Amino acid sequence: MNSPVFLPEFAEGLDTLLTWRRDVRHFQTVPLPNGALDHLLDRACLAPSVGNSQPWRFVRVLSAARRAAIIGHVEAENQQAASIYRDETRAAYDALKLHGLREAPEHLAVFCELDPAAGRGLGRQTMPETLAYSVVIAVHTLWLAARTIGIGVGWVSIVDPAAINRLLDVPEDWRLVALLCLGYPAEESETPELVRRRWQDRLHAGQTRFVR
Amino acid sequence: MNSPVFLPEFAEGLDTLLTWRRDVRHFQTVPLPNGALDHLLDRACLAPSVGNSQPWRFVRVLSAARRAAIIGHVEAENQQAASIYRDETRAAYDALKLHGLREAPEHLAVFCELDPAAGRGLGRQTMPETLAYSVVIAVHTLWLAARTIGIGVGWVSIVDPAAINRLLDVPEDWRLVALLCLGYPAEESETPELVRRRWQDRLHAGQTRFVR
Repeated sequence: MNSPVFLPEFAEGLDTLLTWRRDVRHFQTVPLPNGALDHLLDRACLAPSVGNSQPWRFVRVLSAARRAAIIGHVEAENQQAASIYRDETRAAYDALKLHGLREAPEHLAVFCELDPAAGRGLGRQTMPETLAYSVVIAVHTLWLAARTIGIGVGWVSIVDPAAINRLLDVPEDWRLVALLCLGYPAEESETPELVRRRWQDRLHAGQTRFVR
Repeated sequence: MNSPVFLPEFAEGLDTLLTWRRDVRHFQTVPLPNGALDHLLDRACLAPSVGNSQPWRFVRVLSAARRAAIIGHVEAENQQAASIYRDETRAAYDALKLHGLREAPEHLAVFCELDPAAGRGLGRQTMPETLAYSVVIAVHTLWLAARTIGIGVGWVSIVDPAAINRLLDVPEDWRLVALLCLGYPAEESETPELVRRRWQDRLHAGQTRFVR
């Protein structure tokens, strides 16, 4: 196959996708179509990985009891996380909706195998965290592919990773990278929810770009 | 603005982009056009980040002395990394080209600020590594946007992060996430170089997908 040339229309579409991706916390409860999750996982596995180690391990949570246990865990951790804020900031924090685990039809836990055979250790001796970084890129790939077909993804980070391992009965040498909600979003926006709710605005270029 | 609907042609284009992205180690020495790097950094800053903390710090390396120091550092670290392999595996390792730092017209070091004010700590109390994960997604966003306009990216991970901080004179509370080469690729392929060179093939779905 000849190498592809991407037209300006595709580059514009990619800009639109990046602009409208969103971390989704408001979901419709309607299930995903059959095969949609596998379709997205196929795309996720096109992600690059250090030494081609492909350390991503995807766990789809179907058990109602395990879903409920995850929700209970996240709500307890969130109560704890809220306790560092005071006064107006605490009120602003409490007004945020930080996860859509109750409504989202799918919970997907994404782990990193910490010493995979694949890749034969290449590229990760000095920065072993590049294994987890590879998994992060798989998550982002899934996220973009999902938004392209109208499916929203929310990343829930207020969890104790080891607790999720126990709840889902996965090996100790898998480290949780992301707990994801997937489903059809209840709303769309080109502006991040934390900007709209005045928690944190965008930084300007001079705060993030430097030359040496 | 109304929320966008992505056509099947765009989804196909995204599949093509994900399939042909590649970690590039073979570059042409031709410089990038004026403004291309800023264009890509604008896209990178559309990435999601924990608490909207935007912890990415991009350092473009223009000094010839610093470029040379980076190349010297990576080659020394790579000699060290090679020493764990023996016999046929060592020969296979030595035959790999693991970076294009000499030829690539741009070196970009991407750091994570470890305790940024932005985001007010939201979402990162239990998993502080989500800050670095946010930077990884910014890198991946830049990578996809680059490939869309024909620019290749290579991620060099065989480095001592603290040494790069010293070489580039950046604050100690910035952690190196990725050292990138950017430039026009000398070749294109839909198959990862480590597959073509028989270092590591793709895994199958049963090795990475589970249900609970």
